[in-house]
Amino acid sequence: MDAIRTITTGFLGLGNIGAGVWRLLDEMGEEIAAREGVRFRVKKALVRDTLKRRDVSAPPSVLTASADDVLDDPDIELVVEALGGEQPAAEYIRRALTSGKSVVTANKLALATHWQELLETARATGSCLYFEPGVCGAIPVIRTITDSLQANRVERLYGIINGTTNYILSKMSAPFAGQGSASGATGSRGVSYADALYEAQRLGLAEPDPTADVEGGDAACKLSILSTLAFRAHVPLEGLFRRGITTITPVDVAYGRELGYALKLLAVAKRDGDRVQARVHPTFVPLSHPLASVNGSLNAVYLYGHACGELMLYGRGAGDAPTASAVVSDMIAAVREGCVGGGDAYRMTGKVVMETDWESRYFIRMLAVDRPGVLGAIAGILGRHGVSIASLRQTVGNGRAPLLFVTHIARESDVRAALSEIDESLAAIENVIYVEEGL
Amino acid sequence: MDAIRTITTGFLGLGNIGAGVWRLLDEMGEEIAAREGVRFRVKKALVRDTLKRRDVSAPPSVLTASADDVLDDPDIELVVEALGGEQPAAEYIRRALTSGKSVVTANKLALATHWQELLETARATGSCLYFEPGVCGAIPVIRTITDSLQANRVERLYGIINGTTNYILSKMSAPFAGQGSASGATGSRGVSYADALYEAQRLGLAEPDPTADVEGGDAACKLSILSTLAFRAHVPLEGLFRRGITTITPVDVAYGRELGYALKLLAVAKRDGDRVQARVHPTFVPLSHPLASVNGSLNAVYLYGHACGELMLYGRGAGDAPTASAVVSDMIAAVREGCVGGGDAYRMTGKVVMETDWESRYFIRMLAVDRPGVLGAIAGILGRHGVSIASLRQTVGNGRAPLLFVTHIARESDVRAALSEIDESLAAIENVIYVEEGL
Repeated sequence: MDAIRTITTGFLGLGNIGAGVWRLLDEMGEEIAAREGVRFRVKKALVRDTLKRRDVSAPPSVLTASADDVLDDPDIELVVEALGGEQPAAEYIRRALTSGKSVVTANKLALATHWQELLETARATGSCLYFEPGVCGAIPVIRTITDSLQANRVERLYGIINGTTNYILSKMSAPFAGQGSASGATGSRGVSYADALYEAQRLGLAEPDPTADVEGGDAACKLSILSTLAFRAHVPLEGLFRRGITTITPVDVAYGRELGYALKLLAVAKRDGDRVQARVHPTFVPLSHPLASVNGSLNAVYLYGHACGELMLYGRGAGDAPTASAVVSDMIAAVREGCVGGGDAYRMTGKVVMETDWESRYFIRMLAVDRPGVLGAIAGILGRHGVSIASLRQTVGNGRAPLLFVTHIARESDVRAALSEIDESLAAIENVIYVEEGL
Repeated sequence: MDAIRTITTGFLGLGNIGAGVWRLLDEMGEEIAAREGVRFRVKKALVRDTLKRRDVSAPPSVLTASADDVLDDPDIELVVEALGGEQPAAEYIRRALTSGKSVVTANKLALATHWQELLETARATGSCLYFEPGVCGAIPVIRTITDSLQANRVERLYGIINGTTNYILSKMSAPFAGQGSASGATGSRGVSYADALYEAQRLGLAEPDPTADVEGGDAACKLSILSTLAFRAHVPLEGLFRRGITTITPVDVAYGRELGYALKLLAVAKRDGDRVQARVHPTFVPLSHPLASVNGSLNAVYLYGHACGELMLYGRGAGDAPTASAVVSDMIAAVREGCVGGGDAYRMTGKVVMETDWESRYFIRMLAVDRPGVLGAIAGILGRHGVSIASLRQTVGNGRAPLLFVTHIARESDVRAALSEIDESLAAIENVIYVEEGL
């Protein structure tokens, strides 16, 4: 058996994730030394308050309130960044890479917003930047794309990559009898968005300010990273379309389920030559598709490569232990790959044009004025814009009747144009939701 | 951009898999050179008949009928073994490793039966042995275990790792209305085992001699490899329990579905300290579990690590292109990891004792003699052996009545002992199938 190597490490942050990594190294340190021939010594850990009581065995001498103690210490070869937030995390990562340290980060925001600068810095200095824990926690999706799909053209990628919103949408759809009529569905027992959010917050699955999750910002960061790697061309965060889940009602969820769909905050990236569409929005997926059974706070990424075919990775996308599992795996990768002085194997080979007017099927829910000719007029408007109707469900109301359309494949701009012509004399548009059937 | 390195390669076999790799390298060669800085030149390819017309662009000068032309050529650094079968493949792999060549193999049988000898040879000579394509085709399950779960204790692993049997069982369960009574289920439209097998053979999903697939031998090879890696201790093929699917009837499948289960040929490996159970057998899994929706020829591996939690990988476990995707990925890994002269990062750190008398829930289907006291007598026998009944379904027949039990957790030896006491005066045992609920 070879000698065991010790790697001197610095932590930026010792909150939930940092402490999780600390505990996992404590628990598995001997086993990792036996398995991998490496031991990690944490020399310094940046914390806000060095006197705060912590649930880790870090001795007081390790704690520091100064980032310089980590970033300027030449002994420290490897930095674990677990501060969260864009700044100062991104700047600290850049400084560490500049001084030749390798970095493992769980910070998708810092990474997605400073992608090119950080990767160029790593390339220039020969240091390595690892970020598996930043994208879907313990699910090895980064490593799969970079290390297992090198011979593939990845053409489509779909993800349920935000556990908070998936938990909320699961709550809004369950318990659901699944047998009601459209009117029965209206009365189903899925909880409201507000109640589901409250429950998620109570369980620690949502932040006190849930904006980044529920408006799709967190998922957009991850999608930018995932699609950049999958397409081998930078897919900038600014180019992504995003819509959150705050306008979703249990009625939409219930109607969709009747039509054979589960509602997910889906991240979608498609490539056609150099044209790319990348978007995060509430989406109906067929109940028979594996993504439909990804429930609660679980995550999954489903992709197609031209050689590998369909591939799905499913697991825990967040939480202290799953994230720590990915952090320690990346720390070991940095050693295995000789990254203390090594290089970056992954190369970008293309450029893309962001597609903003994509084609999709659409679920359109309206409250139509209940008089003869209205349905015909609405169908006529849609048809004139090239939006054809795949299925239609209509129930009778008092003055206003719920009207559901699922369209055939239509262009986003055509749907928008058609809906803008449908005024209050015909119907009120209640919600428009993307439907993915070609998964 | 760095210079592009050329790696001289030899193929053993140019059948479906070998030809698939050849075509993928043809198609993606330039892209791989740009992405990874490496080009693969195939110098020699071993084939049985050098004159046979082939669906690949291999020039005649590359083809050879002599393995020595590949194994004894010092120019060849990397060997792709795609012969299949235990011998001479295992011997060729050993010879290649001995002479310092690295090997990528798609051959689970040669690997599982010669695991220790081949790994020791690689270790001794510093050459590398890659086998991702041998276990579940394009699904990166080997790399996930070795490269993403290093900080985990993997305690349980479940796999649907044979596409042929999964296709057959899917056919035997569908189309299924899902609404019948027990007697209705008996008349359900799932096809017979023989018909499903015939269909699989017609589609090229099953061999003319299907034994290795339907008797669980193929899955056992893969499970031996997967559990060895997951548990970091050799789980020998000989220690595995296996039962095939040939005794399964559509009646079992239909009854199981009524009880809320899908029937799968499940590979199960569990570790408790140094005690390991590893087994392949038809198993009922709850319909709500993600493994239940793995249908047709798709594969999936579901595992639990103590830090990462549950993790599932799903995709194409066979087929030319998916397997070629994994082969080329491993070829690139051999280059990235400096395996032309490099080492083997994966270390075994334990030994296990094979558990043969495990605990499970059981589905037991009998035809009971239809007279008073029989049910009580059967329940009494089960109870005396510590096998308690979780649910029971009974229908009335003429003289013989179908009787279904699902037991609580019971020990295999207790169930066997109880069933051996139930003689023809009470009931005929029709089938006993494992039920996994703690997935």
